Amino acid sequence: MARRARASRDRNTAPAGAPASPFIQRRLPFFDVLDEEKLVKLEAQVDWIFEDIGIAFRDDPEALRIWREAGARIDGDIVRADAQWIRALCAKAPCEFTQLARNRERSVTIGGNNQVFAPIYGAPFVRDLKGGRRYGDMESFEKLVKLTYMHPNLHHGGFVICEPCDVPVSKRHFDMLFAHMTLSDKPHLGAITEMSRAQDSVDMAEIVFGKEVMDNNCVIMGNVNTNSPLLVDKVVTEAVRTYSARGQGMIVVPFILTGAMGPVSTAASVAQAMAEAMMVCAFTQLVRPGAPFVLGNFLSSMSLKSGAPTFGMPEPVVSNYAIGQLARRAGLPLRCGGSLTASKIEDAQAAYESADSMHSTMLAGANFVLHSAGWMEGGLCTGFEKLIMDADRLGSYQKVLSHGLDTSDEAFARDAYAEVEPGGHFLGSAHTMRNYQTAFYEPKLSDSENVESWEEGGSKNMRQRAYERWNQMLNEYQAPPLDDAVKEELSGYVARRKEEIPDAWY
Amino acid sequence: MARRARASRDRNTAPAGAPASPFIQRRLPFFDVLDEEKLVKLEAQVDWIFEDIGIAFRDDPEALRIWREAGARIDGDIVRADAQWIRALCAKAPCEFTQLARNRERSVTIGGNNQVFAPIYGAPFVRDLKGGRRYGDMESFEKLVKLTYMHPNLHHGGFVICEPCDVPVSKRHFDMLFAHMTLSDKPHLGAITEMSRAQDSVDMAEIVFGKEVMDNNCVIMGNVNTNSPLLVDKVVTEAVRTYSARGQGMIVVPFILTGAMGPVSTAASVAQAMAEAMMVCAFTQLVRPGAPFVLGNFLSSMSLKSGAPTFGMPEPVVSNYAIGQLARRAGLPLRCGGSLTASKIEDAQAAYESADSMHSTMLAGANFVLHSAGWMEGGLCTGFEKLIMDADRLGSYQKVLSHGLDTSDEAFARDAYAEVEPGGHFLGSAHTMRNYQTAFYEPKLSDSENVESWEEGGSKNMRQRAYERWNQMLNEYQAPPLDDAVKEELSGYVARRKEEIPDAWY
Repeated sequence: MARRARASRDRNTAPAGAPASPFIQRRLPFFDVLDEEKLVKLEAQVDWIFEDIGIAFRDDPEALRIWREAGARIDGDIVRADAQWIRALCAKAPCEFTQLARNRERSVTIGGNNQVFAPIYGAPFVRDLKGGRRYGDMESFEKLVKLTYMHPNLHHGGFVICEPCDVPVSKRHFDMLFAHMTLSDKPHLGAITEMSRAQDSVDMAEIVFGKEVMDNNCVIMGNVNTNSPLLVDKVVTEAVRTYSARGQGMIVVPFILTGAMGPVSTAASVAQAMAEAMMVCAFTQLVRPGAPFVLGNFLSSMSLKSGAPTFGMPEPVVSNYAIGQLARRAGLPLRCGGSLTASKIEDAQAAYESADSMHSTMLAGANFVLHSAGWMEGGLCTGFEKLIMDADRLGSYQKVLSHGLDTSDEAFARDAYAEVEPGGHFLGSAHTMRNYQTAFYEPKLSDSENVESWEEGGSKNMRQRAYERWNQMLNEYQAPPLDDAVKEELSGYVARRKEEIPDAWY
Repeated sequence: MARRARASRDRNTAPAGAPASPFIQRRLPFFDVLDEEKLVKLEAQVDWIFEDIGIAFRDDPEALRIWREAGARIDGDIVRADAQWIRALCAKAPCEFTQLARNRERSVTIGGNNQVFAPIYGAPFVRDLKGGRRYGDMESFEKLVKLTYMHPNLHHGGFVICEPCDVPVSKRHFDMLFAHMTLSDKPHLGAITEMSRAQDSVDMAEIVFGKEVMDNNCVIMGNVNTNSPLLVDKVVTEAVRTYSARGQGMIVVPFILTGAMGPVSTAASVAQAMAEAMMVCAFTQLVRPGAPFVLGNFLSSMSLKSGAPTFGMPEPVVSNYAIGQLARRAGLPLRCGGSLTASKIEDAQAAYESADSMHSTMLAGANFVLHSAGWMEGGLCTGFEKLIMDADRLGSYQKVLSHGLDTSDEAFARDAYAEVEPGGHFLGSAHTMRNYQTAFYEPKLSDSENVESWEEGGSKNMRQRAYERWNQMLNEYQAPPLDDAVKEELSGYVARRKEEIPDAWY
């Protein structure tokens, strides 16, 4: 209690690294766009995929063995099953669960009314105002981990904030895990690209949390894509057989570029995504009943001119609202959306698209939002300024969600009307004095001065202010405390495993 | 029918001036954020203002006479009245009504499930990429009227797209009206700053539409602000006694900078705005029962550092959702929100703030959205590129609202699943061929190419693309047809009245 009270008091002085809140507890109602008839139609399509179309589980005989023994119908590598049975298996996954952070004050609850924001994942390039666009490297990665740790509006560290392309593919997961575990104390994800890398992630998490804590809690999660359409490869099933088997979380995300990996229709693509993710959810529950699971969705639209994916467009906006409702009906935590854009730079396009994408993500009730900050260029590039600009806007969404509309007696301010004449002003009223300090979200990067003051300040655009801010944050960075013995054991593990594994660059 | 069919067919070839649709008929459900208990509390506060606090009607003895004769309680210039009576008067205003355009294919229906987008109103400055920031003038005004006329995502011309500061204040309404009436055939607003100017607007509209059409239809509207808090001056009541008396529309908008013109609380400010606007609505119905009325709301948050208004922030976002619900309960068409920002330039701040402001405006069900495009610098400046960038995004909102999620059999694409293997793609499927051309909103200004193609194209940011687009549009502009006799009569009216009135610059 004492520690929580201090964290809360610290909010106004905003020390580096102190989150405004470890995650969002939503008070705003959900936005339900579909009526019962549409919901039933969508669910019927999902069930039709389970029963008639099926989903291929490829390159992992153990996965097919698990399905066969459980009673699914196997035809080659296509798995079909009774829809009611799949839904019953999914119902074994928790509606909400907590992922512990090594600093327990930063643990996040995922599912239900809770919403958690995490940064971009997987970009091979980085970009900043002075350094320009370049391949990601470990130096950039560490800076991005520090910034994510320090930013009060990011609740979760994510994992591959950029690809550290200067480290061999076969070994970079060690350095990424070590960075998250030592430079930050927020929760984070682990590797999934290969089964041994997933196992390394789980093993290193056990060093940090200890066996007993890990036996009884989710402390790390893996985030994987299905190979849409309707294909689940061994990257997915091996990650499940590592993370889920150990009681750790799995986030399973069909990435559907509508018209390519799914039909050129939002309804069909949303249903297909539900079917793919729920089929893997059922698989996780065969591997370990009760293992934490997050139903993922990543649906993008397409440019007719080039076939390139587009973001922040009306079709994915509507799909966010629809999938939110379907996930709640299925009782599964949801990952969808993010601050997504196709723009190459930090211009108005980037911001319009990111805001529309994220606004719908927020209202849809997405419980875990990867890519909530830093995404550029269709996900190919992590922007340092973009990370800080997006994260500044996340504070606004956080306030919308966690406050809604206060209708307490104090909010109605009846005493103020006794003080103020018609045409007068409330600036000095007692009610204003009592409430002004907490009345408004104070963004760090929006300039609301008049044009003269703004010009006197150097006519800086938002990107320039963001550049200054992230540099200032890094100057003020202080590593969170970590037990020396734990740090040594992590270092030892990394050194030993790096010895055992040959360098590989693919 | 034939003309409507042609307009619809033309949509894909996008001729200048052809709107995608004359207005939005919403299929997406409304987003209701307030439960019954909160709604009742807010309405009780509104009623308390009607009955106990009252609203001052100042400087217009005729307005007080009308209230007194109708039975309101008058104390000095404060009008108080039974809440049930005020609500009964408001119920005489139509839930929805049509404003005719001189081209009837562009007439807009305001209220109910319909949403209408109009550009910025009232900025003294303009800004474009080559010309920089400068006072608005008639040349800019005419260009902005042409662009609004040509843009398919703007349904309504608004009125003061910028202030033409090179024309005396006492005469500029003539030139603005003449520009809207001759350069565009979309519906527009009229002047309100002085009673004779309102009358000129109504008289010029009568020249365009004829007396009989005007007697039986809304063909022009006035948009006025109350003097919040709780003060209605003669600008408002004289406009009502001109527009409403003639059966024309009134939009009445409390502008409340929360903490200054209202208590530092969203709930109190929303209730105050409802009370002010509904009180004027009741007044319009005393002047002429059944006169079209739009309940306005313009609520902004404040920077604690400077006291400057801020936009796109969480408090006005929530207020948009709340006022939408309250307006629907009151059965009154709503104006709120817009693409609002405090940014001085067309940077990421401008776009983030505009998008969050407009996304909530869209979902809130705002029936008439002034400032939906072109707003910069807290409303002090109309941006040429901003107008075109915002309007491009309006097309996305239009699709979200008017399409929602299609769950027809065709949308579920079951035949496509027979064609496509697991891990394959839907690009060439028969379903894709049948549907791809209408599947996605195609923005004009978003670049989704890869970084190499984008660099080859000159690495242009969105603002540069917008600059090229509005210049191209102006090159392609063709005035809509207008009867010579009408144009002559308008010119004659303007010439005669300009003779009668002395130049005045305030």
